[in-house]
Amino acid sequence: MSKTVATDFKLWMEDVQAQMERALSRVLPSSNHLPERLHDAMRYSVLDGGKRVRPLLVFAAGSLVDAPAERLQYAGCALEFIHAYSLVHDDMPAMDNDVLRRGKPTVHVAYGEATALLAGDALQAAAFEVLANHSLADNPADQLQMIRILASASGSLGMCGGQGIDLYSVGQTLTLPQLEMMHILKTGALIRAAVLLGSYCGTPLTSEQREALDHYAKCIGLAFQVVDDILDCEADSATLGKTAGKDAANNKPTYVALLGLKGAKEKAAELKASALASLAPFGERANILSALAGYIVDRKY
Amino acid sequence: MSKTVATDFKLWMEDVQAQMERALSRVLPSSNHLPERLHDAMRYSVLDGGKRVRPLLVFAAGSLVDAPAERLQYAGCALEFIHAYSLVHDDMPAMDNDVLRRGKPTVHVAYGEATALLAGDALQAAAFEVLANHSLADNPADQLQMIRILASASGSLGMCGGQGIDLYSVGQTLTLPQLEMMHILKTGALIRAAVLLGSYCGTPLTSEQREALDHYAKCIGLAFQVVDDILDCEADSATLGKTAGKDAANNKPTYVALLGLKGAKEKAAELKASALASLAPFGERANILSALAGYIVDRKY
Repeated sequence: MSKTVATDFKLWMEDVQAQMERALSRVLPSSNHLPERLHDAMRYSVLDGGKRVRPLLVFAAGSLVDAPAERLQYAGCALEFIHAYSLVHDDMPAMDNDVLRRGKPTVHVAYGEATALLAGDALQAAAFEVLANHSLADNPADQLQMIRILASASGSLGMCGGQGIDLYSVGQTLTLPQLEMMHILKTGALIRAAVLLGSYCGTPLTSEQREALDHYAKCIGLAFQVVDDILDCEADSATLGKTAGKDAANNKPTYVALLGLKGAKEKAAELKASALASLAPFGERANILSALAGYIVDRKY
Repeated sequence: MSKTVATDFKLWMEDVQAQMERALSRVLPSSNHLPERLHDAMRYSVLDGGKRVRPLLVFAAGSLVDAPAERLQYAGCALEFIHAYSLVHDDMPAMDNDVLRRGKPTVHVAYGEATALLAGDALQAAAFEVLANHSLADNPADQLQMIRILASASGSLGMCGGQGIDLYSVGQTLTLPQLEMMHILKTGALIRAAVLLGSYCGTPLTSEQREALDHYAKCIGLAFQVVDDILDCEADSATLGKTAGKDAANNKPTYVALLGLKGAKEKAAELKASALASLAPFGERANILSALAGYIVDRKY
């Protein structure tokens, strides 16, 4: 990436993150609304934290189809609500029992388990509400398709299914295809949904274009997880903002465990190259998507 | 109710319950799908249990607008998935810590807490998926409205909000308006959504008609909870299929605690009368809705 492109991308990213922070705060019910404690917990889990990777993907795909920013903000909120609820529930003692997230106490530590459970549930409902509440596509049939994509990516054959496979595989040795299948569901499905939802907010793509974009999304989704495993192995807790080295300690299968650190890094580089190749037909219109692939694979936390 | 009407209603109800059992089984992913344990838990929590009150309300409202049975089945599935997930999460140790539901061990007892958490999450996603996956209204804009209604009824200003108020009021003395507000959200919102969703599956109603139907739904929603409180006070665990007398033991506010048993029964009767009065303009087309109001208020478990 040239220095100018890198600077432009950084500015674009900061602009999207700022737009999203405002949109998330506006769409979430105020802490003054009854029950205050629940709304407080919802806002705590969503606001002022995270890299907003999924909204960034929504906006990057949206830039390919000249989508209005307002639509992308709402779609980004839906993705971020699903992502946030999954973290809240995943951190609970019944699952990962984690006490630190984005450098802050996890929701059940700060608000208690009952509120964490309810806040997660309410955030999932909020995701579908924001997708249905506003005009997000040129016609309502496409908007229904967006809801279908998000619901399917979130459910038992998507993210929840991946979490289940992860849960039931603790202490077991997975093969590479099994590990890949788990991550395609656990993180990949939602990342893919982010790219697709963004692409529905603007001028319709041809089915060939949509397939190329979907290939990009699949590669990025998997690369994201490979990099997560590498960072979990390499980084310390302070940089990561969450407990590091946890996966190995919990005997969880990771790419690093299966491929070694060097092999995992090669895998991430291959996935990035494959993602970039699928963007070629779009030419310069895909610059942001390309830069975002680099950002996701080369990040340090 | 005359004997013939009562018999007809009983047959209608059994038919809807049988249709719903088949539809729920068909729409839920098979237990053979990976992760099997998660899908098993989802099926366990939804199938072969419950009175299917919300689907009955969907069908009863659908009978007012000549809605096709298939649409009502899908809408009924969505309501039942939301209802089932709320029970699974509500029964968990972090919330009510209940071990018995519909005469069977609760999901976290049978499958463990992590699976119960995930199964509930996946059921909520399944609810929105089934509403988006099939053609349920004459136009996609109405179908988006159905999703909007269900999401809003389920979220932090609906069912989850009511559960939160319930949670934070344990050990406190609520006034009657506060108790009512809690139940309007906790059970009422979903019951109201059931009636509205059913009405969207067929010939459009006028706004006056929709308001009358909504008044019916509000009364029935509140009556349902008043009767629940009465039954929790009067019945034994065997008849109820869940732990009886729990609310009083947990020092939870109930209608019986506030109004006395006699007062709570009068309240239920008043709500039923008000619900029936709002159906008058529909004439005989509302027979099933009338009979269902009687069934909900006069039930013994």
